[in-house]
Amino acid sequence: MQSNQHVTTRFLSAEGAADMICRKGLAACIQGIAAYIHADFVRWNDFEKIARVANHSTDGVIELMPISDAQQYSFKYVNGHPRNYRFGLPTVMAFGVLADVDTGVPTLVSELTLTTALRTAAMSAVAARALARPDSARMALIGNGAQSEFQALAFHHMLGIREFHLYDTDPAATEKLVANLAALGLHAKRFNSIREAVRGVDIVTTVTADKTNATILTPDMIEPGMHINGVGGDCPGKTELHPDVLRMGAVFCEFEPQSRIEGDMQQMPADFPVVELWQVLTGKTPGRRQASDVTIFDSVGFALEDYSALRFMRDTAVELGMDEEISLIPALADPKNLFGFLPGRQAKAESALPAALAA
Amino acid sequence: MQSNQHVTTRFLSAEGAADMICRKGLAACIQGIAAYIHADFVRWNDFEKIARVANHSTDGVIELMPISDAQQYSFKYVNGHPRNYRFGLPTVMAFGVLADVDTGVPTLVSELTLTTALRTAAMSAVAARALARPDSARMALIGNGAQSEFQALAFHHMLGIREFHLYDTDPAATEKLVANLAALGLHAKRFNSIREAVRGVDIVTTVTADKTNATILTPDMIEPGMHINGVGGDCPGKTELHPDVLRMGAVFCEFEPQSRIEGDMQQMPADFPVVELWQVLTGKTPGRRQASDVTIFDSVGFALEDYSALRFMRDTAVELGMDEEISLIPALADPKNLFGFLPGRQAKAESALPAALAA
Repeated sequence: MQSNQHVTTRFLSAEGAADMICRKGLAACIQGIAAYIHADFVRWNDFEKIARVANHSTDGVIELMPISDAQQYSFKYVNGHPRNYRFGLPTVMAFGVLADVDTGVPTLVSELTLTTALRTAAMSAVAARALARPDSARMALIGNGAQSEFQALAFHHMLGIREFHLYDTDPAATEKLVANLAALGLHAKRFNSIREAVRGVDIVTTVTADKTNATILTPDMIEPGMHINGVGGDCPGKTELHPDVLRMGAVFCEFEPQSRIEGDMQQMPADFPVVELWQVLTGKTPGRRQASDVTIFDSVGFALEDYSALRFMRDTAVELGMDEEISLIPALADPKNLFGFLPGRQAKAESALPAALAA
Repeated sequence: MQSNQHVTTRFLSAEGAADMICRKGLAACIQGIAAYIHADFVRWNDFEKIARVANHSTDGVIELMPISDAQQYSFKYVNGHPRNYRFGLPTVMAFGVLADVDTGVPTLVSELTLTTALRTAAMSAVAARALARPDSARMALIGNGAQSEFQALAFHHMLGIREFHLYDTDPAATEKLVANLAALGLHAKRFNSIREAVRGVDIVTTVTADKTNATILTPDMIEPGMHINGVGGDCPGKTELHPDVLRMGAVFCEFEPQSRIEGDMQQMPADFPVVELWQVLTGKTPGRRQASDVTIFDSVGFALEDYSALRFMRDTAVELGMDEEISLIPALADPKNLFGFLPGRQAKAESALPAALAA
């Protein structure tokens, strides 16, 4: 038996992650996470998958999203509080943990507010690469909030999208996105309605924030050959697509049991046909069959994407020497003597230890 | 709308928690946690309770234990890996989080390996104070591992137990416990068998570690008036009491749906009578009816106890000025401009930011 084992938990703070992304390059990070996601989705059946666990309250929800394979375990903590703008807080905040399945040691604690935006964009692009027309060049971005820059960058670098059509109910959001995209050298056009924004594009990304059954896209807006990347319909009561839009093409999702509850397909009957994306990525099921097909990725965000993103962030932090450490687990001289951790420390600080402990 | 909101997450490391416990006093901490547990159990119906979520592997299990009321949310991450001694690691390691239900902000990240031992002992003593004979003076401690000192200290300070009868299959564990208890000024006797150790005591605490359906206590060992504090039968396939022992008295548990799966009562039929402890603490249901009754607390450890313990640790850290901070959530100038967190930071570090970001 070894003794005095030192348990190392790496830590990536919000600022540490941002610094690392800036140093590595945002596009490189999104592409790196996409590569990890693709590789993990291809070995789909290696994972123990569980629907997320939610605690609901008046103003929002707090969720835990665990997943594991034979080597590693991860979970994400994530909230959804649409009225957080009142406090100047993000609607969605997150952090996550990687752990070693053999021992249970938590090996990484990382911010995931920023990283989730990268992984969501990476997931969208992985799906679109398998489903959209290879000659896609123009994308509409409906919803210009916190996720939108990441979506644009992912589709520019991974699918060669050169032109972005923007629409948001809040003109200030679109203004912010135009400025941020210009700084990235990406070409964007503003439109005054969803209908105008989606006309003639190859891909439509919906990433709106309203927690309602909204109807962002209706059947008359959909053109042959379009790929719809539906990101914002992601919890019960929050949808973006008219049900008839889902009937216009082939629908793909991440993890079917979760997507039937949380995705746009929550509006459809239980036997509505849907294909899990891993089946397309592994070649088991065809994705797009012809150029005129409509394809729909009904994305809700799945624990496996966070597992992939956490591993990418850890590996990159190690590569760049940017990882910190936190002490979450006591380093015990004898693992059966947890109590010994107390007077051992006390002895270093003062002399009269047992009396103080028993006080 | 406020802007540039700074999100504060307190952090209590393994060493920080140990230092704090030494400064406050271990017995004072156990009693403090017991007071929080009692107060929270009395308002049982305020809580949204969920059975723990487990990912199983060959060598162990990793679990998440969430709970919330209208104000605060907590969860515990905890593993159980019986073969961790091979690596010099504890069998059980844990950490936990408190969060604000109104906003989803995680307000505390804390170690829970050490703290769980305190809260388990506190829970045992809260139950025994309601169930054991008030004149109890002698307790048998069957299983002298990592939890045992904490149990002894809790029962000494909260129930006035003056004499401890010790037994463990591993004589080294008992030797360690005798030494640790002597340092605390507590009187302990070693015994060569369970039968001898429990003879004539008022309370029997079983806190063994073997992950098997063991039979630590058999009906012939049980004397009228005894209270049994069964701590080690706490997951499927891990029990300590012969089923007929459970039939000898009134059985109490924490959260019935979880205890029927994880507790010693997993051996009993689904209609076996059991009372949730909060009903006794609120006076809804009697506990012990007469001095000769046998009472059994079939404890498995419930998320509410961690909720209570986390709040005690946070409040004490604040009181003693021993809390650190970690940055888990990005402080955004505009919560709708997550992307702005990147070039904002980049600008501080270097000049050519958009190019690097887009790289």
